[in-house]
Amino acid sequence: MAFEFRVKDWRSFVPILDMVQDYRRADFNHDLIAGLIVGVITVPQAIAYAFLAGLPPEAGLYASLVPMVIYAVLGSSRQMVVGPVAVAALMVAAAIGKHATEWGHNYLAISTLLCFQAGIVLWLLRLSNMGGVVNLMSHPVIVGFVNAAALLIIISQIGPLTGIPGDNKLDPLALLVQLAESVGGINTITLVIGLACGIGMWAVQRYITMLLRLVGLRLADDHPVTRLGPLLVTIAAGLVVWAGQLNESAGVAVIGPVPGGLPAFTVPPLEWDLWVKLLPTSTMIALVAYVESYSIGTTLATRERTRINSHQELIALGAANVGAAFTGAYPVAGSFSRSSVNFQSGARTQMSSLVCMVVILLTLLFFTPLFTLLPQTALAAIVIVSVFGLMDFKSVRDHWKVHRDDSVTQLVTLVTVLVFGVETGLITGVALSIAFFVRRVSRPHVAIVGRVGNSEAFRAARRYEVETFAHVAAIRIDESLFFANTNQIENKLLKIVQRRPGTRHVVLVCSAINMVDVSGLEMLYRINDNFARMGITLHLAEVKAPVMDQLEADDFVEALSGTIYFSTDQAMRDLAVQN
Amino acid sequence: MAFEFRVKDWRSFVPILDMVQDYRRADFNHDLIAGLIVGVITVPQAIAYAFLAGLPPEAGLYASLVPMVIYAVLGSSRQMVVGPVAVAALMVAAAIGKHATEWGHNYLAISTLLCFQAGIVLWLLRLSNMGGVVNLMSHPVIVGFVNAAALLIIISQIGPLTGIPGDNKLDPLALLVQLAESVGGINTITLVIGLACGIGMWAVQRYITMLLRLVGLRLADDHPVTRLGPLLVTIAAGLVVWAGQLNESAGVAVIGPVPGGLPAFTVPPLEWDLWVKLLPTSTMIALVAYVESYSIGTTLATRERTRINSHQELIALGAANVGAAFTGAYPVAGSFSRSSVNFQSGARTQMSSLVCMVVILLTLLFFTPLFTLLPQTALAAIVIVSVFGLMDFKSVRDHWKVHRDDSVTQLVTLVTVLVFGVETGLITGVALSIAFFVRRVSRPHVAIVGRVGNSEAFRAARRYEVETFAHVAAIRIDESLFFANTNQIENKLLKIVQRRPGTRHVVLVCSAINMVDVSGLEMLYRINDNFARMGITLHLAEVKAPVMDQLEADDFVEALSGTIYFSTDQAMRDLAVQN
Repeated sequence: MAFEFRVKDWRSFVPILDMVQDYRRADFNHDLIAGLIVGVITVPQAIAYAFLAGLPPEAGLYASLVPMVIYAVLGSSRQMVVGPVAVAALMVAAAIGKHATEWGHNYLAISTLLCFQAGIVLWLLRLSNMGGVVNLMSHPVIVGFVNAAALLIIISQIGPLTGIPGDNKLDPLALLVQLAESVGGINTITLVIGLACGIGMWAVQRYITMLLRLVGLRLADDHPVTRLGPLLVTIAAGLVVWAGQLNESAGVAVIGPVPGGLPAFTVPPLEWDLWVKLLPTSTMIALVAYVESYSIGTTLATRERTRINSHQELIALGAANVGAAFTGAYPVAGSFSRSSVNFQSGARTQMSSLVCMVVILLTLLFFTPLFTLLPQTALAAIVIVSVFGLMDFKSVRDHWKVHRDDSVTQLVTLVTVLVFGVETGLITGVALSIAFFVRRVSRPHVAIVGRVGNSEAFRAARRYEVETFAHVAAIRIDESLFFANTNQIENKLLKIVQRRPGTRHVVLVCSAINMVDVSGLEMLYRINDNFARMGITLHLAEVKAPVMDQLEADDFVEALSGTIYFSTDQAMRDLAVQN
Repeated sequence: MAFEFRVKDWRSFVPILDMVQDYRRADFNHDLIAGLIVGVITVPQAIAYAFLAGLPPEAGLYASLVPMVIYAVLGSSRQMVVGPVAVAALMVAAAIGKHATEWGHNYLAISTLLCFQAGIVLWLLRLSNMGGVVNLMSHPVIVGFVNAAALLIIISQIGPLTGIPGDNKLDPLALLVQLAESVGGINTITLVIGLACGIGMWAVQRYITMLLRLVGLRLADDHPVTRLGPLLVTIAAGLVVWAGQLNESAGVAVIGPVPGGLPAFTVPPLEWDLWVKLLPTSTMIALVAYVESYSIGTTLATRERTRINSHQELIALGAANVGAAFTGAYPVAGSFSRSSVNFQSGARTQMSSLVCMVVILLTLLFFTPLFTLLPQTALAAIVIVSVFGLMDFKSVRDHWKVHRDDSVTQLVTLVTVLVFGVETGLITGVALSIAFFVRRVSRPHVAIVGRVGNSEAFRAARRYEVETFAHVAAIRIDESLFFANTNQIENKLLKIVQRRPGTRHVVLVCSAINMVDVSGLEMLYRINDNFARMGITLHLAEVKAPVMDQLEADDFVEALSGTIYFSTDQAMRDLAVQN
C-alpha cells in the first residue's frame, strides 16, 4: 500500500504521464500540425529575443530546446509553449549591461546564472508554499510594467533598426540622446529593410487571409497563418541581403555565422559575489515568468473547462529554467503569442511542444548557415512589432475616473520601471498597491440601515426608503475590523449615537465583516463598555461563522451587553417592541 | 459675514475658549483640587523621567511647564495632562546615547531638536491630512513596543538602583553583561534605599486607603491618594540621605544642585547633519506621542459622551513639543497615569492643568534646593514601578490560539525593538501587520449558500441545513475583490462549477464585497466569459451601492451574462424555475 501510494505520488509530479495514457492517433495529427506551425514561428522569434538580450542567436534556439521539453513533461498546462520571451530577454539585457564589464564580458555566465537562480527561486516558492506572493503583483502593476518594458525594448531596438551605432548599456534616456545626436549615422538601406520587414509583418497579419481567399482558401481571420509574418520577412530580408551582398556593399549589419549543432553542457558560475548581485534580478525574472505563465496557462485551461495546478507550475517552470542554465540558454517563461498559436492550431497535448522541439533541433543541426546573412534590422523589426501587441495604454484612461488608485499605481510603475529599472519599479508598484488597498479599507463605509418595505432586506437609510426606529440604530459596517480602521469605525459609531440622542439599542450588522483582529476586538470591547456607560445596549446581527468562532474564543460573547441575532430581521422585530 | 466666519474659524483652533465661556465657580473648585494633586504627583515623575532621558532634572520640570499650558489652550481634551512620559524619555536617551559624543555631549541640543522636529512632524501630518497613518500601528505593535520599552527602561535603571556603575550608552544586552560583571560594585545602602522606595510605593498604592479607613476616612480603592507614593518616598528618601549625610558617608549618588527659576529661552540647533540624523527618531517620537495621547484623550472623552478632535490634537501636541523645544525641555505627550489621576480627582476642564503648572512653577522658584540630596536610586525606583504598570504579557498568551498573526506581530515587535531599537522595531511591526493582513484577505472564505427554512436568509450549505438547487450555485464571497485574492477566488469558483456538472446558473452573493479594484474587475470579466463558454450564466445579488456604482461605470453591467438581483432571495426564487 505504502509503495503504491508513493508511486501514485511520484506520478502526480509528471503530468505528461496522464497524457501518454489516453493518447490516440487522432491527437497526434493535431499535435503534429500545431507543433510544426509553432516551430517555424519560434525560430525567428528565438533569434530575435536572443539578440534583444544581448546574447548570441543560438542561445535563443537553445532556450526553445531543453527547457521546452522539460516543461512539456512537468507542466500542468497541455498547450502552453515555454521558451524565450521578450520581457525576460529585456531583464537579461539589463543585467548584462550592468555587470558584463566587471565579469570580463562573459555574457553567457550571467544569463545562465540568471536562469539557474530563477529556477531555484521558483522551487523555493513551491517548497515554502509561498507561490501566492505573485498575486501581490496587481493587474495595474503588471500592465504598467509591461508597458514600460515594451517602451524600453523599442528604444533598445532603434539602433539596430536604423543602423545608428548606439550603446545599449546606457540607460534609456541617455541612449535616446545618443541616438538623436548620431542621427546622421542612419544607414538608409538598413532602415528601409527594417521598415519593410515591419510593414510586411503587419500586412501578413492583416491581409494574408484575404489574399488566400482570392485563391479560394477560406480561413478564419485569426488563423495561425497570420502569425507567419516574422518567418516570411526573415526569409525575404535574408534573400535581399544575399542577393545584393548588402552586408559588404551597403554596410548592413548581419547576424554572422551561427554555430550549429546541439548546445554544450554549461555550468552556471558559482562566484558568490555574482550570485549576490544577480539575485534581485533573477528573483524578479522568476516572479514575472511565473505570473505570465500562470495567467496564460489559466486562460488556456478554462477554455477546456480544466484548471492548471499552480504548485506544479512552479516546479515545472523552475525545472525549465534550471534546464536552460545547463544548456547555455537564458531565462524562459510561457510565451503568450506562441501558446495562443499552439492552441488555435489545434494542439491537444504537450506532444505539440515535442514536435516544435524537433523543428528547433533540425534547425540547429542543418539550417544555421542560412542565418549568416540575416540582417539585424529584420530582427529589430520582429521585436518591435511583437512588443507593440503587449502595450495597453487604454486601461489607464478607462479606469481613471472609477479606479483612480489603480491608474496612479499603473503610471507610477511605468515611470519607475523606465527611470529606475525593473526591480525598483515592480517593488514600488507592489508597495503602492498595498498602500492604496490599506488606505481604502481603513476608510470603511458605515451606514444606518432600515427595513425595505415588508421584506427581510435591510438597506442604507440614506439611499433607500426604509423603516427605522428612533430608539434602535442598526448600523452596517462595510469592512472587516482590523487595526487600520478601528479608530475610524469607533469614531463613526460614537458620532452616530451622539446625533441620535434617543438611541437605546445599537445593532451592528456584521454581514460584511469577514474577520476581526486583536485591534478590532479591543475596539468592540471599548464600544461595548462605552455604550453601556451611555445606557445603550450593543447587539450584533448576521455574524459570519468564522467571525463568530473568533468572538466566542475571545469571550466577547459573554462581555456583550446585548444579544447576537441570527439576522437583522430578527433583531429589528425583537428590538422594535423593547424600549 | 466673511469677517465673522474668519473669527469663528480662528476660535475653533483654540478649544479653551469654549471652556472659558461656560466656566463656573463650581468648576474651579474641582479643577483646583485635581490640579494640586496632579501637580504634586508630577514633580517626582518629571525629575525621574528627565533622569531616565539622561537630562538634568530641571528639564523634566520645564517639560511640565510651557508645553502643558500650550496643550491646555489648544488641546481638544479637557482632562488630558501633557508632559514628560517614560517612553519618550527612553527614545531621547537612545538618541543621546547614539549622537552625544559626536555633538560634544550637548545633550540639551539633541533633546530640544527632537522636540522641535517632533512638533513639525505632527504639524505636517495635520497639514497633509495624514494623521490617520498612526492607525497603522496596530494594537499588537503598540503592546509589543511598550513591553520592549518597559524592559529597556528597567534595564537602564538597574545601575542607578543598585549603585553599580553602568554605561547607559551601551546596547541593553551589553549593559546587562557589564552590570553582571561588576555585580561586586553594588552599593548596599543605595540598593536598600531603592528597594525601600519601591516597596513603599507599592504599599501606598495598595494599602493607603485601608490605613485611612482606620482613621475614619473612607475612600475608593482607586482614589488619587493611592498615587502619592512617589511623592512620599521621594520625601522620605531625601530626609534619610540628609539625616545620615549618606551621599558622603556611604557614597549614595544624589541629584546634586538643581538650578531654580524659569527656563531660559533655548533655540534648537540648526545643523543640517544633526537634523537628518535625528529625524527618524523624532518622527517615531511624534507618532508614538500622538498614538498614546489620542488613545488617552478618546478614553477620557467617551466617559463624558464627547469625542476629541484628531486634527486639533495634532496641532496642539505639535505646538506643545515646539514649546518644549524653546524652553529647554524634551519631547512631551499625554501621560496616561497623570491624566487618569486628573480625571479621577474630578477635573472638569483644562483649568486643572493650569493649576498643575502653577505647582511646577512654585517648585522651580522655591523648592529646587530641597532636591539636592535626593538619591538617584529613589528616582530609579519611581521609574521602574511606573513602567511595571505598562507591561502586558498576558495578551500574547490570550490571543495565541485565535489571533496567531497578532501574537507573532507582538513578539516580533518586542524582539526587534529590544535588539535593533525603537525605529526599526516599530517599522518591522507595522510592515508585519500589513503583510499578515494582506495574506489573510488574500485567502478569502468562499461558500455555497442555501435558503434557511422558509426565511429569506441564506447561509453556508456546509454549516447549516439549507435548501439548494442542482442547477443553481449561489456562492458567497467573503471578501472584497482586489488584486491579492482574485486568482484565488477565480480558482475556487472554477473548482465549484467543475464539481457540480449540472450547474447552469451561478449567483455571486456580494453582501461581503465592499470594493472591486481593476484586478477584481478583470477577474469578473474573465469569469463571466469563461462561464458563458461553459454554458453557465453569471448573476450577481446583494451588490452594495458603492460597488454597484463602480460596476456600472466600468460597463460590466452590460457585459454580465445574467441579471443583477436585489437580494439572494429574489435570485433564487427566479432561478429555481428556470433551467
